[in-house]
Amino acid sequence: MAYVRNAWYVASWTQDLEAGKPLAMSILGEALVIYRTASGRVIALEDRCVHRLAPLSLGRCEGENLRCMYHGLLYNSDGKVVSIPGQKLIPPSAKVKSYPVVERHSWVWVWMGDSTKADPGLIPPAVGFDDPNWILGRGYLDYQAEARLINDNLLDFSHLTYVHANSFGAGEVFATQQPKITALERGVRVERWIENSHLGARSGFAEPVDSWQSYDFLIPGVLLMWSGGFRAGTAQACNYNRPNYDDAITAVTFTSQAVTPVGNKTARYFFSWGPHCRHGDAALRDMLMALANQAFAEDKAMIEAQQRVIDRTGHAQVMAIKHDLSVTLFNRLLEKWTDEQHELVA
Amino acid sequence: MAYVRNAWYVASWTQDLEAGKPLAMSILGEALVIYRTASGRVIALEDRCVHRLAPLSLGRCEGENLRCMYHGLLYNSDGKVVSIPGQKLIPPSAKVKSYPVVERHSWVWVWMGDSTKADPGLIPPAVGFDDPNWILGRGYLDYQAEARLINDNLLDFSHLTYVHANSFGAGEVFATQQPKITALERGVRVERWIENSHLGARSGFAEPVDSWQSYDFLIPGVLLMWSGGFRAGTAQACNYNRPNYDDAITAVTFTSQAVTPVGNKTARYFFSWGPHCRHGDAALRDMLMALANQAFAEDKAMIEAQQRVIDRTGHAQVMAIKHDLSVTLFNRLLEKWTDEQHELVA
Amino acid sequence: MAYVRNAWYVASWTQDLEAGKPLAMSILGEALVIYRTASGRVIALEDRCVHRLAPLSLGRCEGENLRCMYHGLLYNSDGKVVSIPGQKLIPPSAKVKSYPVVERHSWVWVWMGDSTKADPGLIPPAVGFDDPNWILGRGYLDYQAEARLINDNLLDFSHLTYVHANSFGAGEVFATQQPKITALERGVRVERWIENSHLGARSGFAEPVDSWQSYDFLIPGVLLMWSGGFRAGTAQACNYNRPNYDDAITAVTFTSQAVTPVGNKTARYFFSWGPHCRHGDAALRDMLMALANQAFAEDKAMIEAQQRVIDRTGHAQVMAIKHDLSVTLFNRLLEKWTDEQHELVA
Repeated sequence: MAYVRNAWYVASWTQDLEAGKPLAMSILGEALVIYRTASGRVIALEDRCVHRLAPLSLGRCEGENLRCMYHGLLYNSDGKVVSIPGQKLIPPSAKVKSYPVVERHSWVWVWMGDSTKADPGLIPPAVGFDDPNWILGRGYLDYQAEARLINDNLLDFSHLTYVHANSFGAGEVFATQQPKITALERGVRVERWIENSHLGARSGFAEPVDSWQSYDFLIPGVLLMWSGGFRAGTAQACNYNRPNYDDAITAVTFTSQAVTPVGNKTARYFFSWGPHCRHGDAALRDMLMALANQAFAEDKAMIEAQQRVIDRTGHAQVMAIKHDLSVTLFNRLLEKWTDEQHELVA
Repeated sequence: MAYVRNAWYVASWTQDLEAGKPLAMSILGEALVIYRTASGRVIALEDRCVHRLAPLSLGRCEGENLRCMYHGLLYNSDGKVVSIPGQKLIPPSAKVKSYPVVERHSWVWVWMGDSTKADPGLIPPAVGFDDPNWILGRGYLDYQAEARLINDNLLDFSHLTYVHANSFGAGEVFATQQPKITALERGVRVERWIENSHLGARSGFAEPVDSWQSYDFLIPGVLLMWSGGFRAGTAQACNYNRPNYDDAITAVTFTSQAVTPVGNKTARYFFSWGPHCRHGDAALRDMLMALANQAFAEDKAMIEAQQRVIDRTGHAQVMAIKHDLSVTLFNRLLEKWTDEQHELVA
Repeated sequence: MAYVRNAWYVASWTQDLEAGKPLAMSILGEALVIYRTASGRVIALEDRCVHRLAPLSLGRCEGENLRCMYHGLLYNSDGKVVSIPGQKLIPPSAKVKSYPVVERHSWVWVWMGDSTKADPGLIPPAVGFDDPNWILGRGYLDYQAEARLINDNLLDFSHLTYVHANSFGAGEVFATQQPKITALERGVRVERWIENSHLGARSGFAEPVDSWQSYDFLIPGVLLMWSGGFRAGTAQACNYNRPNYDDAITAVTFTSQAVTPVGNKTARYFFSWGPHCRHGDAALRDMLMALANQAFAEDKAMIEAQQRVIDRTGHAQVMAIKHDLSVTLFNRLLEKWTDEQHELVA
């Protein structure tokens, strides 16, 4: 898989990682067991016992350690075997790979590349459930499709007009109008004003508003988006640049979405959404999450169908259109970072 | 797949192709989208958008055109892209393959070969629901088996004695007696008399009759069969040749059956059956269709099991028996027509 | 598959082979049809008709013969075609492979190797339902895993401490203590005393007992185990050797378990368990079978998960531990017997 290895991948919502319950998760085709120790640390190890290849994710947490529940080998949080039932000698080679892990913004991030380069500063600045300013809901979907296809989808919102005609109901404008695209060091920024939009109706706002959306799509596949509605005329007044969120008249919302490549043609798609506490409440959050669940199921149906066409017809050439600019920029960035890694390795 | 390409294949019952609802169907491993336009024409295109390979069968019919519902590219009925949202330029290469289609005898026929050779005169002379003389029912079954195995089954009715012992209940005679086999230009004709048969009992006829059956099995895999019961002695009286259907004393019925290769080891089997209007009514048709559904499920169970044996054991040699004459004739015909095409291509 | 071919494999419980109902079963990847004739004999043939490769297991028993229910070819119990509908000539080559079969100890045993070497004396001395001394229950489980992994599991009971912590509840001793391992000509003997054990509680026996277990694990994959509880001190009194079963104070039980490789990564696991008639009754048998069903489902979950890890990671090296001694001995034995066959063939 042509994915950047030196990156932090979302492995789980922290809320889904209960103490004492090992979690099986694969990233970039590598099977991991992730567990929370008695002291609360999160550990990620290779999910395969050195003895007879049983999965450690069927194991038992014991303090800071994890015991394989087939024949009882005990692993410490570095992945080293520290006890073998029935014998005293433990071969020094008896260990599994361990992965750098950080819990941040309510996500468990795992570093899949060279562990000496695992800089937590590279974790995208998402907003988690620990931030009191936002009232968020969350979820995830498992895809029978390559992560890249979901990235492509998230980088180009022109699909909203077609795929989400029945859910977001955003009309023609996403297809006809080009957003402002800016290259970032580790991603792409996509910004758009939609003037005289009825998108504010969701917040019970009858008059047309100027609707602002801005998202960063960051390596390895994380979308962070802020949006809000402003009095008609605001877009022009601020020369189509970023507005002051304090001036918003309909709900300012935030969504974070992370695409994790599980296997070659499978992915897990994590997402949150909700209003800023000054602009909405739990009821609005629940309405947004219901909408998200409907819309993300529409994406999944289309993308999995697209994957099946690709499977059937091999490496068929795609034909880029103008709306693919953000996709192309992000893919170039991926290549650059992947190449850089190769250079460093070589 | 060793199937004739220059042939009309049944893609659907016309009744199953609703206006405005694109239909996904694969033939000979090629994925097609088939749709009926606002003006009522039937169009068959390659089911893959040139942009990002989404299936057009998830698209939206717009007048004579079909819109991809991922990013909105609009295709006309020739398969040419006529609109790309967000841009004016349309590359001339932006088109998908279109297939010759004819609606006839209540079937949608698609030509899978060289489109300059697509002669509607080659469509087998089936009987459709537009013919007021016949009171027909219809259906289809999806097979997890190669189409060829279904063809083999339909070419040799000696299996009726065994596979359909509990449904058609035709007795030993299909296995013990050889039918008359005649080679046609694009098929095989199979005719048989069964003297003193109780097959007339279905029509509530207690006395034994002389039962006549005649079917043509035509390239690429279409069976057209007429049958009826006659006063005992008729077979001998007409020297075991074709009788005059006007003399029939039990229901004259017609069935058409078409085997369409979907993929390498999948097929769709379309069928109709029913009495001539002078010999039966809707009640008899319903009784025949119930019988057909039972019997065709018996065939499917046997043929899919046969396919699994073949999958397991590779290209094992079969041992032809005397009853395989019609199978052998038809397969030779297929080879001849396939070879002829190769010569033309070379 | 690296399995001994010159061996008797369990194909079925005799009780599951009803007269007139052909049974489909695969062993070492070869598909067999097994049927009981009108006179009560058990026959095993290749499950593939010579004519068009239909499975004979969909056939009909006729006296001592089996008829293919596709086009009616009739096979005798040697696998020879004796009738072809519609023709008189039967080619001498019209026959399928037949396999040596023996019914013994309530199991149907099939010899998968050179039939001239099929010596019924090599059938492991299991105990069947025809033995009035034992009150047995029986069952089987289908595994999505290679038979070898189940053999490994049965050869090393140290897994009882972990996999069966919630069912057998045998405690730490299986993991900490090594049993006595003895190489046999065609297997491995595993014996252990567990002193001051509460395993007798199952028989309603409150005081600790000395618990004895002894099993032979025999080629190709058959476990025969006797166990019982003895007054505390017995182990030491008999110098940790085999006790006199007449001295048992809690239920002496017997279990036979057979692992049959079905395909490359599938297996069927047959088992019985129950008390000696002097030590228990049908109620105890039912309690033991409920326990077995719980415990064997635990094994299946672990072993199938282990198989999935192996599938994912290829031929990864395992790391043998001290408890693997019996596994290693048995695998060497398998190699030796497999090699011997090669020498004989060459």
